[in-house]
Amino acid sequence: MSGFEQPIRIGMVGGGRDAFIGAVHRMATRLDQSMQLVAGALSSTRDKSIASGLDLGLDEERCYESWERMIADEAARSPEDRMQALVIVTPNHVHFPVAKAAMEMGFHVICDKPLAMNSAQADELVDIQSRTGLVFGVTYNYTGYPMVKQARHLVRSGALGEIRKIIVEYNQGWLSTPLEETGQKQADWRTDPSRAGMGGAMGDIGSHAENLVSYVTDLEVTRFSSDLTAHVPGRQLDDDASMLLQFENGARGILTVSQICTGCRNDLRLRVWGTQGGITWHQETPDRLVQTSLDGPEQIHHRADSSLCDASLSATRLPGGHPEAFIEAFANLYRSMAEAIRAGLDDGQRYDYPTVRDGARGVKFIEQVVSNSGDGWSVLR
Amino acid sequence: MSGFEQPIRIGMVGGGRDAFIGAVHRMATRLDQSMQLVAGALSSTRDKSIASGLDLGLDEERCYESWERMIADEAARSPEDRMQALVIVTPNHVHFPVAKAAMEMGFHVICDKPLAMNSAQADELVDIQSRTGLVFGVTYNYTGYPMVKQARHLVRSGALGEIRKIIVEYNQGWLSTPLEETGQKQADWRTDPSRAGMGGAMGDIGSHAENLVSYVTDLEVTRFSSDLTAHVPGRQLDDDASMLLQFENGARGILTVSQICTGCRNDLRLRVWGTQGGITWHQETPDRLVQTSLDGPEQIHHRADSSLCDASLSATRLPGGHPEAFIEAFANLYRSMAEAIRAGLDDGQRYDYPTVRDGARGVKFIEQVVSNSGDGWSVLR
Amino acid sequence: MSGFEQPIRIGMVGGGRDAFIGAVHRMATRLDQSMQLVAGALSSTRDKSIASGLDLGLDEERCYESWERMIADEAARSPEDRMQALVIVTPNHVHFPVAKAAMEMGFHVICDKPLAMNSAQADELVDIQSRTGLVFGVTYNYTGYPMVKQARHLVRSGALGEIRKIIVEYNQGWLSTPLEETGQKQADWRTDPSRAGMGGAMGDIGSHAENLVSYVTDLEVTRFSSDLTAHVPGRQLDDDASMLLQFENGARGILTVSQICTGCRNDLRLRVWGTQGGITWHQETPDRLVQTSLDGPEQIHHRADSSLCDASLSATRLPGGHPEAFIEAFANLYRSMAEAIRAGLDDGQRYDYPTVRDGARGVKFIEQVVSNSGDGWSVLR
Amino acid sequence: MSGFEQPIRIGMVGGGRDAFIGAVHRMATRLDQSMQLVAGALSSTRDKSIASGLDLGLDEERCYESWERMIADEAARSPEDRMQALVIVTPNHVHFPVAKAAMEMGFHVICDKPLAMNSAQADELVDIQSRTGLVFGVTYNYTGYPMVKQARHLVRSGALGEIRKIIVEYNQGWLSTPLEETGQKQADWRTDPSRAGMGGAMGDIGSHAENLVSYVTDLEVTRFSSDLTAHVPGRQLDDDASMLLQFENGARGILTVSQICTGCRNDLRLRVWGTQGGITWHQETPDRLVQTSLDGPEQIHHRADSSLCDASLSATRLPGGHPEAFIEAFANLYRSMAEAIRAGLDDGQRYDYPTVRDGARGVKFIEQVVSNSGDGWSVLR
Repeated sequence: MSGFEQPIRIGMVGGGRDAFIGAVHRMATRLDQSMQLVAGALSSTRDKSIASGLDLGLDEERCYESWERMIADEAARSPEDRMQALVIVTPNHVHFPVAKAAMEMGFHVICDKPLAMNSAQADELVDIQSRTGLVFGVTYNYTGYPMVKQARHLVRSGALGEIRKIIVEYNQGWLSTPLEETGQKQADWRTDPSRAGMGGAMGDIGSHAENLVSYVTDLEVTRFSSDLTAHVPGRQLDDDASMLLQFENGARGILTVSQICTGCRNDLRLRVWGTQGGITWHQETPDRLVQTSLDGPEQIHHRADSSLCDASLSATRLPGGHPEAFIEAFANLYRSMAEAIRAGLDDGQRYDYPTVRDGARGVKFIEQVVSNSGDGWSVLR
Repeated sequence: MSGFEQPIRIGMVGGGRDAFIGAVHRMATRLDQSMQLVAGALSSTRDKSIASGLDLGLDEERCYESWERMIADEAARSPEDRMQALVIVTPNHVHFPVAKAAMEMGFHVICDKPLAMNSAQADELVDIQSRTGLVFGVTYNYTGYPMVKQARHLVRSGALGEIRKIIVEYNQGWLSTPLEETGQKQADWRTDPSRAGMGGAMGDIGSHAENLVSYVTDLEVTRFSSDLTAHVPGRQLDDDASMLLQFENGARGILTVSQICTGCRNDLRLRVWGTQGGITWHQETPDRLVQTSLDGPEQIHHRADSSLCDASLSATRLPGGHPEAFIEAFANLYRSMAEAIRAGLDDGQRYDYPTVRDGARGVKFIEQVVSNSGDGWSVLR
Repeated sequence: MSGFEQPIRIGMVGGGRDAFIGAVHRMATRLDQSMQLVAGALSSTRDKSIASGLDLGLDEERCYESWERMIADEAARSPEDRMQALVIVTPNHVHFPVAKAAMEMGFHVICDKPLAMNSAQADELVDIQSRTGLVFGVTYNYTGYPMVKQARHLVRSGALGEIRKIIVEYNQGWLSTPLEETGQKQADWRTDPSRAGMGGAMGDIGSHAENLVSYVTDLEVTRFSSDLTAHVPGRQLDDDASMLLQFENGARGILTVSQICTGCRNDLRLRVWGTQGGITWHQETPDRLVQTSLDGPEQIHHRADSSLCDASLSATRLPGGHPEAFIEAFANLYRSMAEAIRAGLDDGQRYDYPTVRDGARGVKFIEQVVSNSGDGWSVLR
Repeated sequence: MSGFEQPIRIGMVGGGRDAFIGAVHRMATRLDQSMQLVAGALSSTRDKSIASGLDLGLDEERCYESWERMIADEAARSPEDRMQALVIVTPNHVHFPVAKAAMEMGFHVICDKPLAMNSAQADELVDIQSRTGLVFGVTYNYTGYPMVKQARHLVRSGALGEIRKIIVEYNQGWLSTPLEETGQKQADWRTDPSRAGMGGAMGDIGSHAENLVSYVTDLEVTRFSSDLTAHVPGRQLDDDASMLLQFENGARGILTVSQICTGCRNDLRLRVWGTQGGITWHQETPDRLVQTSLDGPEQIHHRADSSLCDASLSATRLPGGHPEAFIEAFANLYRSMAEAIRAGLDDGQRYDYPTVRDGARGVKFIEQVVSNSGDGWSVLR
């Protein structure tokens, strides 16, 4: 067993009072002491930003009124003291300017998905990262689940044979009504094109679905036919999106995401079938992975089974049957990103976390399926 | 309780030795004594046809060498003695000539799906039925399940509100390998365009999926974008089909069927969501129907619950928890068709069975999604 | 494939208008044409008995006013014409006199469980059967399920190692209220000691639980500590029973049955663990059998999987994923008993059906766990 | 939203290198920053104890060689600096001396279950707590699950009516083989009476089962008949325990726990039925609670549903469908205990955590079911 590793010092943009996902990021960092919050510009308004930092026990002088100030002031601190990485958990339109500014001042970046408002922004972030070599993680958190890692292992090891069919779905119901009209904060910005970008459900959860397929199968989409709809009257962005996919190897796929599947919670499911077998994973019971084969019984793999791959086992904290869940998966990403930051090496394959390139691929995908919705088959460029 | 009803006398075409579905039809008729097999032309070859009839205990003189002979000879019998209806359980290419000939000699018809090889044939059968008024049932057997009837009831009663999203899938894996090359009889004809028609998986099980959506939701498809694939090398017909659907009311849908989902058995699932709630039904656990709502707990309805609709309860034989399944659902269709035949009235709504019109709609659907596969959006004509 | 086998001709006692289980027996016989109802004394009152027979399409002269008359008159018929076996589906107190009289007139017997009102009666039936050699089946129908046969196979083949722990439970909720006071027929006799015998829930469903354990494990109970309770005020017989069991090989067990588990339907579950693995079977999803092992994934066996044992596969009618259920399992018993009757050989091991000895063991078990309820540990004699 | 609360400063006894549950306690404290580890005597040997503390990043001077030293030295620190509470995560035989010494020096105590080696020790701890008024929490962690809190709410609110039947089970399989002979640390001490106490499976997990029943139903056991067995040859303590229970209100129960249920992980299940309905909770899918009623559909409550009780909702961090699990439930206990410590008030009902009295009741229960195993019915004194 090795000695104690100091947590990576982080600043956070967004995630103040009334926010949702910022608190999850913080719990994820604390679970393993992988990172430690030392600074924050937690809200878009000065007073709320500072008050939110005090709520979290930050030093008053590091409760910043704005992200610009935080980046400037932290950069002025000594190397042993200043934040090492900046975590961006704001609405989507803020991702790009913050990430760009942070990298330009030499900070590593951890950014929520979707990476940016459009592929031009995304490409620019990729360029800056390439130039600076800084670590840039994108929190596609579902890839942190141990059984998703096992799914990837089964595909990569050839246990399923050549992949032929992929169905990924992410069904939610929380936007079945015009919730944004009530002022509910999460609904408000996610349905506003100026803050969410061009994708509604597609941007918010379609991004996860796309990335999950890519992570597990390593297959590239080549063509698609998409259909995005805003079912709730008055809504400007899609609240439901379905598409047919064709992959480079001839596999066929379906991707469907929705926020109007009334009564669904976070019903993210991935099914993949190949010539030799299939797998099913469901986010709401994440410790299980079903594997099927040409004949023989269906098999249920459970997290922490000794038969699982190393990547799955090393993402596991508890014995089987003591369930792990969302926060633990999220913490796995943070643990991986902390390792990369310590090593000073932005290598998503080696440390097993999603990179700015994964984020950029996601933005490009969203952009095209939105733009070509209803047009029939398009080549993914 | 009413007195004993004499079973309807039936002849059967197909369903001899080595066949599969014919035996299911016979069990379905026997379960409730709704119909009684009195004659058979059970195979395409003379000797096997006769031997198959003897296997089943038919009178030797009613073990016919061919369906033409059966129709002719049975028609020559006295009204009290001759078969009343003819059941067609052959490969698809035989459906049309037999059904046509049977009706022209005054016999009611019960025909497996898909109804015919193309829409021209299907339309002709609709015409003949209209002209003769004979009962014509198509064995879309999944509509016989009590919880499918409850699903329909929930939609019709408005419990789900306006329908917005439909996902229907039918995943099988038995054709993941080139089984047809081994001579396996079921695989052999289903992968042969001259006997199966233009659709492979689409014709065989896509027909069920299409009909299930129609039965439960009453919604008409207006546009689609389909993608059919033959994954197994050398196979001439699709073994996998996916499509996006748009419905008359603006609802969106996905229909996907496959015979290369390795390890799947008869994984037919229907999910429907509306403005007020959603339902999920899965054929492999058919006694359950999940209902969700805008808030409040998920509800699991079980077959025979006193809260269910009349159509569901009257399709039920056993108390809840004593499971009913495939054969019982099939028998419900036979019970309904027997009632219609006794009444001499081809009314699928009243007696609750799929009619020749349902069958024709299905053939038209298959024809168009096959023809336009890969072409992008098409209007369903 | 062999030629057609004539169904065994049966008479039925009980199962008339308003009865429940008689109709299930008849459906079970018809499904495979294993047996054919030719005579009936279907109710305890003359007029209802005859009317019930006419309802079923029996010849008027074989709609008997009483079981005594049926036995006498049928015995007077020619051997090719008369009933071969008598099916007893009455309340429990009628089992013994009818079974005895039937055997004494040379008829095979198929009797519902529990076999008799007490062990003295049961022993006498065993004696008569031994003397006459007639086939005597007891309809412990749950042993007819294909996956129960597979469970037995796994135990017998040693796949689980030495058995250490058994939990069997049968939870129902239909008697949570004093339903018998409403005149509901099924509740009425089952809660009346003069018709049901000494056991309430224990006799009605505890008998199934005991037999299921015996069938699957072949282990004998040696000691027990039982606790039977009548929870509903005024009820004379137990509506809830729990007991600890010790088996001859040192295995430990729990048997619990209840009719006051509010909201449960027919929640019969069996779990068995040995030194090498375990199995779980649940009657409400009967096509699945879960198998666990010391390590490695959980395995789900599905009915009709090619890897299953012969006994399981030959009790199967449909491909996997086309669910089979309660009536099919019941029909398997009838198919087995028909074979035994054709062979004239009362061999439950060979033909795989429960015999009068299984029935007598069950009665003895019920008698003792009822008598010693609350007394602490008793030796099962 | 309130300001930041300083975490409670804790010391830990046990939980060093190779330990299991100590790490879980630490993650649970960190998740919400409810408590902060400032001192440790983490192992029973001097060098390992100190090394383990350094591993965790403790100040070197607070990495103690023994718990005696830690208590003494911490007590000598200033009130603002010294640990406030001591967490005991050692094998069972160490609980009592440490807890006693800690309280006598004025430290609050958080102790793993079972509380002590026997009821004399437990009673003494109760006495000391009563005298000192210090907060004393026992980490029956399963009561921290939000849906367990909802279960308790449903019982207390009368939704189930009067309780009649309770089945609690905790099935594990990890001790199916003589794992202790391999030197595996967790197996080693748990099977050793000098360190584990009189109960094997009963002490380790039976304690959880007993407490879960008590927490959810508030019912007291009055009589029991128990059967404890050591199935694995050479093992001195029970690895399997089953018992019948009778409760003060006439309800009947079954408690069964095992560590030889081969293939089971942490299969803790609770079912409770009353005159009006029933509930089922399963620890491996902890975000769900099934509720049944006299009629009407089965209901599945999901964590975070707006219809849940306050206690359940305030124990919730994430929206429904983002699963929470074992660590989060554990953290809920720590959050509650931190509140009690801040308030200086040992009130388990008010702050919702298990107290020393719950722990003592558990020890008494274990003691009696072990002592009277095989003796038939005993009164619980």
